[in-house]
Amino acid sequence: MQTLFLTVFILYFALLDILDCGLHVCPCFVCVSTGLMWIYNSLDSYVFLQYLAWVIYPVLLICFSAGFVQFLAPPAAGSGIPEMKAILRGVVMKEYLSLKTFVAKIIGLTTALGSGMPLGKEGPFVHLGGLCGAVLMRFMSLFGEIYENDSRYIEMLAVACAVGVGSCFAAPIGGVLFSIEITSQLFSVRSYWRGIFAATIGAFIFRVLAVWNTDAETVTALLRTSFRLDFPFGLQELPAFGALGIACGFGGALFVYLNGLIVRFIKKQKANNGFLMKKHLLYPALVTLLISTLTFPPGFGQFMAGKLNMMETMEALLDNRTWAKQGIAEEAEHMGHSEAWIIPQVNVFVTLGLFTFMKFWMSALATTMPVPYGSFMPVFVIGAGFGRLVGEGMATWFPDGIHTNGTSYPIVPGGYAAVGAAALSGAVSHSVSTAVIVFEMTGQITHILPIIIAVILANIVAQSLSPSLYDSLIRIKKLPYLPELGWGHHEKHDKHVEDMMERDVRYITLNCSYRDLYNVLLKGHDNTVALVESAESMILLGSIELAQLQALLSLQLGRPLRLENIRERAVEDKKCPLVVSNSSENSSHRASQEVRFQISEDSSLSPTRPVPQKPLKPALKRPSVVEQPTGPHDHSGIAFKNPYGTIPDLEDNVDVEDDMSIREITELEEKQLDEKVNFNNCKIKDVTIQLVERMSLHKTHTIFSVLGLDHAYVTSIGRLVGVVSIKELHKAIEGSVKVEGAKVRPALASFRDKGKISSKNETIDVHKLRDRLRSMQLPREHTPSE
Amino acid sequence: MQTLFLTVFILYFALLDILDCGLHVCPCFVCVSTGLMWIYNSLDSYVFLQYLAWVIYPVLLICFSAGFVQFLAPPAAGSGIPEMKAILRGVVMKEYLSLKTFVAKIIGLTTALGSGMPLGKEGPFVHLGGLCGAVLMRFMSLFGEIYENDSRYIEMLAVACAVGVGSCFAAPIGGVLFSIEITSQLFSVRSYWRGIFAATIGAFIFRVLAVWNTDAETVTALLRTSFRLDFPFGLQELPAFGALGIACGFGGALFVYLNGLIVRFIKKQKANNGFLMKKHLLYPALVTLLISTLTFPPGFGQFMAGKLNMMETMEALLDNRTWAKQGIAEEAEHMGHSEAWIIPQVNVFVTLGLFTFMKFWMSALATTMPVPYGSFMPVFVIGAGFGRLVGEGMATWFPDGIHTNGTSYPIVPGGYAAVGAAALSGAVSHSVSTAVIVFEMTGQITHILPIIIAVILANIVAQSLSPSLYDSLIRIKKLPYLPELGWGHHEKHDKHVEDMMERDVRYITLNCSYRDLYNVLLKGHDNTVALVESAESMILLGSIELAQLQALLSLQLGRPLRLENIRERAVEDKKCPLVVSNSSENSSHRASQEVRFQISEDSSLSPTRPVPQKPLKPALKRPSVVEQPTGPHDHSGIAFKNPYGTIPDLEDNVDVEDDMSIREITELEEKQLDEKVNFNNCKIKDVTIQLVERMSLHKTHTIFSVLGLDHAYVTSIGRLVGVVSIKELHKAIEGSVKVEGAKVRPALASFRDKGKISSKNETIDVHKLRDRLRSMQLPREHTPSE
Repeated sequence: MQTLFLTVFILYFALLDILDCGLHVCPCFVCVSTGLMWIYNSLDSYVFLQYLAWVIYPVLLICFSAGFVQFLAPPAAGSGIPEMKAILRGVVMKEYLSLKTFVAKIIGLTTALGSGMPLGKEGPFVHLGGLCGAVLMRFMSLFGEIYENDSRYIEMLAVACAVGVGSCFAAPIGGVLFSIEITSQLFSVRSYWRGIFAATIGAFIFRVLAVWNTDAETVTALLRTSFRLDFPFGLQELPAFGALGIACGFGGALFVYLNGLIVRFIKKQKANNGFLMKKHLLYPALVTLLISTLTFPPGFGQFMAGKLNMMETMEALLDNRTWAKQGIAEEAEHMGHSEAWIIPQVNVFVTLGLFTFMKFWMSALATTMPVPYGSFMPVFVIGAGFGRLVGEGMATWFPDGIHTNGTSYPIVPGGYAAVGAAALSGAVSHSVSTAVIVFEMTGQITHILPIIIAVILANIVAQSLSPSLYDSLIRIKKLPYLPELGWGHHEKHDKHVEDMMERDVRYITLNCSYRDLYNVLLKGHDNTVALVESAESMILLGSIELAQLQALLSLQLGRPLRLENIRERAVEDKKCPLVVSNSSENSSHRASQEVRFQISEDSSLSPTRPVPQKPLKPALKRPSVVEQPTGPHDHSGIAFKNPYGTIPDLEDNVDVEDDMSIREITELEEKQLDEKVNFNNCKIKDVTIQLVERMSLHKTHTIFSVLGLDHAYVTSIGRLVGVVSIKELHKAIEGSVKVEGAKVRPALASFRDKGKISSKNETIDVHKLRDRLRSMQLPREHTPSE
Repeated sequence: MQTLFLTVFILYFALLDILDCGLHVCPCFVCVSTGLMWIYNSLDSYVFLQYLAWVIYPVLLICFSAGFVQFLAPPAAGSGIPEMKAILRGVVMKEYLSLKTFVAKIIGLTTALGSGMPLGKEGPFVHLGGLCGAVLMRFMSLFGEIYENDSRYIEMLAVACAVGVGSCFAAPIGGVLFSIEITSQLFSVRSYWRGIFAATIGAFIFRVLAVWNTDAETVTALLRTSFRLDFPFGLQELPAFGALGIACGFGGALFVYLNGLIVRFIKKQKANNGFLMKKHLLYPALVTLLISTLTFPPGFGQFMAGKLNMMETMEALLDNRTWAKQGIAEEAEHMGHSEAWIIPQVNVFVTLGLFTFMKFWMSALATTMPVPYGSFMPVFVIGAGFGRLVGEGMATWFPDGIHTNGTSYPIVPGGYAAVGAAALSGAVSHSVSTAVIVFEMTGQITHILPIIIAVILANIVAQSLSPSLYDSLIRIKKLPYLPELGWGHHEKHDKHVEDMMERDVRYITLNCSYRDLYNVLLKGHDNTVALVESAESMILLGSIELAQLQALLSLQLGRPLRLENIRERAVEDKKCPLVVSNSSENSSHRASQEVRFQISEDSSLSPTRPVPQKPLKPALKRPSVVEQPTGPHDHSGIAFKNPYGTIPDLEDNVDVEDDMSIREITELEEKQLDEKVNFNNCKIKDVTIQLVERMSLHKTHTIFSVLGLDHAYVTSIGRLVGVVSIKELHKAIEGSVKVEGAKVRPALASFRDKGKISSKNETIDVHKLRDRLRSMQLPREHTPSE
């Protein structure tokens, strides 16, 4: 068994690595990314043609990417990290882990990256890792049940995310830590272990392939730097590093704000005029056109190193040498990519400043396009640019460097670039592991102290100003999430469950009538209802899903409903038989499309009696709608067999009871509603977690985040006294401030249980029931007279 | 509030850092560690005197350390990591976090480290970090209740441990990761964050102090290496690195086994003949004598670099140059500490091999002495030695180095030393973060791939062979722990709660009689009893602590007891009235000292009737004993007011019932035992976590480890069906194999709730009750005749 388990992992790594390395070195990707430069260079003398090529090439690629993703699997668009975070929280979003999404993501990502827009690949890699994991788990579940275990699944996904990031940066440790920080609030050392293992193999294969391709002599860092080992930086420089970190903190918060602003604006535009909605390729095309026009090397791009791609830019920014001597660029020869910044007429500070500023808004804009993208790398580059700017400034300010023990060491602006990159990306993602990523990417750990200090300062500033980029997107996308108890939530520790719980709990008792059930269904909008022993004792026994209650109710009322509809049909039939039969065919057709397993029964009836189809449909459909969600559960099959089991004798009785009056039916229903509920066939969920009134918010938060709960009942000596859901936790943690887009819609909570229909449908159904009863109001008022 | 919180942290860091740095650079420590070398060098010409100095100096220091620790606070001896692990699991062991222990640990550690024995300091630093945290929390609790919050306390300790390790190695990231890996199974990203923050400040101050002391030019790594950046290692060397990792895995397992063997042997010897127990300084003195004799530089020590201390050894082993050329040592000049290994007559391989072998068993032996010690650093050095041995072997085997692209790069044995150090320490501690520690200590990350691969391989081998060193000590010390679900526990995922739960649960019902209570108290040895609604419904309402039940029982039986005692007193009074009145005054005085709020009632009664005081005492005292433990709880004050409320009318009845016979009293007791229990004043604990029969072992394990449970009830639709405790989890995870020392004694579980009396006392009380009832057996047999 253990060998099998290991095999799974190895198989998995192999899959993932081949994929990852494929992305890096596969000819297709290389073609795409170098194609532009080739075309551009071959059109050297025709500036206008050059411009056309420079602009049209990325526009086409981005449009293809957006179109392809839109066509094949819309969930593949975007970063994927917010969704993975929600999935790891326990929310089931199958469409994000399907094979289609996988294909769309790979192809979309390759083309989007090839376009040269400021887009990264760490988000999609996290998503791809998760996709690989999900696909592999589905494959492995053929071999044994254990792989279907829910918590194993989540664990696998967590490891997969780690592998994704690790392979992306060839940074196994930093990647694992980063993925943990951005996707989890709590994680097991076990997963960390596996993540390191998997990511190491990933990074190993990735780098070894590079050696085999003779891109590199041996396995070294991706962006190898060669800073001084003996005296990397002076203690006097630490204030500058700290200031850089604080500035990056503000910058990170600004980036998140700007990105959120654009995303919200686009969302609003789409919702309002529908123009962008219909022409969904127009927006990415416009954005790409704007960005590529501005980066056109012979034009404005020359002032911001527009012709370099992201990796070349990073290499240049981490360069060991100083570009500015007394503010004037020197030795622009033989400096490789660094030449791009050193233009004779313009100050280095101007080009670096322009680069930072332009890339800042461009990246914030580009990462709103509906293509697969990552925002880490662009932010990383911006940070490096800003750091370099500060570093060059320091080098100009202290041209003699740092004097110690008689030796003077010049200032290394490349070190500032590394610090800036780590700090800005840390601020945007609210993580400190970016420091480790920088060490692993550069292959040098000499600047550990300034980098960590800057990252921590940046994080403190950014975390107190705004949510992380991923949390911001989660809020905008209204995914369910649990806010973190981070810095600044200190006063919340005084809160206890009793201060925040909702005391008005929906419950049913063991000996309740169907009418109570009905009333409960009408009342609230939660997904589950508490089951208590009796209204007096209030002892909590378990919880029942709404769908189950609906099934119980429709099972009880189904027969009269149907009879009533038959009656209606008989009345309508006399008025306009042709129209009705048409619509009945349509609807039966629709029904057969929507509800598969029902077709057999339907079709067997339709040839003999085509007319009863329509009235039968709503009655049959209700339980079927209920059945759909509970299908994946084990016990539901038994629980819901009865309604269909009774169909045949119902059909026999149609003639007998067909002449019942509406009032009679209603009376019968009323009587049936007063019967006691039989819970024998109902699946009662056991309540595993109960909160206590005196439990602190802190502990409640821990329990919710570890076990991925969305609600928990509060009991006192077995008595149900309240309920706490994520909503209440939100309120307790965030207060009532600034949660416009942050409130969790209960509708989304329904994602939790696989395959369940949204509660929207349920409410509609209940409303139908209510409306029907209301229409019966008149006859009902007569019933007491009997 | 937030500022206060931050202040706490900063205060805390300051405290800890000053302490840590103090240890590193304080004159005392420097004196101690350099004193030996100074004496040794000044006695250059007298070998025998040199030997005496070499041997007596460490023996004295170790004896002082052992004696001091033994005298002041025995818990300060040893590593402290096993205890911190247990404390972080939720076990309350106050004596390990007291100020006394703190002082004993610091002084004991300083002297022990100064002795030059192969002892490290990371374990004590973890413990010291925890101690600092605990002291600080106690200090901060003066400012607000929030700091008394239990989960915050644990969080603080987790951060503190991280800081301890981080400061010890000047490796903030690696230290935090390492401390997480060795102390937790699950941890929050929040703690990780704080840990990095705190450890960075720690490492920062530590290194900055070094700069100010002009030990170093600027802040760089502790053991700076200067391996090649451009071609650190060839891909062809990877198999050698892998083999080194596997060998280190076996070595690590062997080390843990050897260490455990010695500890068990010493424990057994102590228990058997008591000789070592009484002369507790003899054992450390003997061990120190043996080790220092063997390392005497002019003697056997010259073949194993005996004169170098641990840091010098590490510096030498990580040396950039190759010591062996074709197996023969060359250029022994100007090589600093490396010269120690290069002896003209002897092969380098022999000295390195001897060094590795001797240090191996010496370290395993030294880390069993009753002084504060760490085992990480010695293991680290042994690993480096072994790695160097392999590296020199490789350099000899391939004298031309690695050829690539026309250039040939010689093999760097120092790199092998780094790999070996990380792999062996990783294998012993079952952690992969040792890799990060190595990067941070050496200041180079060039060998990331071989180091991680070797560490992972070493971990796989070691984890499948033996527990980690800390887990091994936890087992030997019989601390409560939860085995990890690591590699090789895969088949356990099929297990569910129903397979392992104990179905025979002790419970009482809401309408039970005192006799049932009594029987329950006699039966089991758990700490709590389940409270169910009725024996038929078995609906779980909560749990009650044994102490509470005892209080209930003694409250019910107290009155007859008292009457019985009055009777006794009356009999004795006639014999010696003077003595009795004396003792009664004494005891009433004692009672008033012990039970404060009772005094008012007592004293108001005592002037009028001084004689009844003594018989009152035992009856009054029993509830007071029960009250003591429950004192810290909120409700207990209310819970136990009744007994004192009834005192006055009891006093009135004394004369009336004074002439009851023993048989009558017993009959009355029997009657009272049959009464229904009144739970109104009893504190019923709410059951927050209930397991479900179909819950997987995996999830159960997660819940237990996150919430620090020691038992949880299993329910099915509110009905109590079983209970799972750590014992059952142990069985399920480890099977029935090799758990001699590993079983959790339930007595230790009582540590969990602060201030609770140990269950030993409880059982004694119950036994008293039983004995008393037994002595009443004869009259009882007559009762049915009535």
